[in-house]
Amino acid sequence: MKTENTVWHEQQITKEDRAKLKHQQPCLLWYTGLSGSGKSTIANAVDALLFERGCHTYLLDGDNVRHGLNGDLGFSDEDRIENIRRISQVAKLFIDAGLIVSTAFISPFATDRALAADMLASGEFIEVYIDTPIEICEQRDPKGLYKKARAGEIKDFTGIDSAYDVPKTPAIHVKTDDKSILECAERIVAYLVQHNFVSSL
Amino acid sequence: MKTENTVWHEQQITKEDRAKLKHQQPCLLWYTGLSGSGKSTIANAVDALLFERGCHTYLLDGDNVRHGLNGDLGFSDEDRIENIRRISQVAKLFIDAGLIVSTAFISPFATDRALAADMLASGEFIEVYIDTPIEICEQRDPKGLYKKARAGEIKDFTGIDSAYDVPKTPAIHVKTDDKSILECAERIVAYLVQHNFVSSL
Repeated sequence: MKTENTVWHEQQITKEDRAKLKHQQPCLLWYTGLSGSGKSTIANAVDALLFERGCHTYLLDGDNVRHGLNGDLGFSDEDRIENIRRISQVAKLFIDAGLIVSTAFISPFATDRALAADMLASGEFIEVYIDTPIEICEQRDPKGLYKKARAGEIKDFTGIDSAYDVPKTPAIHVKTDDKSILECAERIVAYLVQHNFVSSL
Repeated sequence: MKTENTVWHEQQITKEDRAKLKHQQPCLLWYTGLSGSGKSTIANAVDALLFERGCHTYLLDGDNVRHGLNGDLGFSDEDRIENIRRISQVAKLFIDAGLIVSTAFISPFATDRALAADMLASGEFIEVYIDTPIEICEQRDPKGLYKKARAGEIKDFTGIDSAYDVPKTPAIHVKTDDKSILECAERIVAYLVQHNFVSSL
């Protein structure tokens, strides 16, 4: 009822036009994995490789989106879902603008990831599972969050006292423990080339 | 307090890198004007002209954003402000991605427009006042909204029973009544060229 008086406004320049200008097929790389698994680091490395190829990309990072668009949201179940919804909708706008967009969030629940995938057109959602053993994540602990979670200062922390639903059929499964950041990133770029999202060199 | 456990994540590819790839200076064209004044039509025409020049643009339209990201918002004062806040934050992400982004909303209140401008870096916010006499807007009435407002079926309708704060110092003031859509659009593109947001041909 809220949108009763609004009508979808046909834009003259289409998603296809914008994609063609950028010589790429827009899509969303949805990175998921534990805190400290390397999602943002790998996503940044992928963006850097794609940039070298002249691709137009953008990374929506859990941390930086939290400071702006989703600065009003907390960590309740309701806010978590609203967080995913807004990010997915923004990703959709970026895809419409012709970009290859990435999101790097823990996104521990399969239902939330399915929600994101459902908001996009078929084939646009690419689930990237950054698979790093929790022992390594906890050893790294770049923000000291595991320490706080173990001390009980943070509740519902993924992998400690809250579940992480391992992706059952991720489009890309990146086991990081025996690979460098660059190797992980190259693996993801290879997938994009293989599936014609970006051109081969 | 909500963002206590989040840290700004430094991205390796900067706004400047992305802008350079696109050969343009990113900014936000904030179109404001009465319902039916021609904001979206002119914004689309500007995007089409910019596309011809190889510019990378995107239009956030009041109507299409309402269907997605802001689909949960109504038309109360609180929701109106949240609407503006989210759109400004998304525009900021698009600017960060190197695009020339446009927003086409009535945005009747000077305070709301100031709120949007404040969220961006200095010089990035370009207010474009689409100045069409209300008599003409009401004659056009593309969505039949003026008719509904006159009949009392819509309350707080801008120009009928709710104020429109005329922009005092818009960067671009477009009086539409003696001009074609193309003339209006060319005027705006000329401003962007003059101020080095896009290259001259």
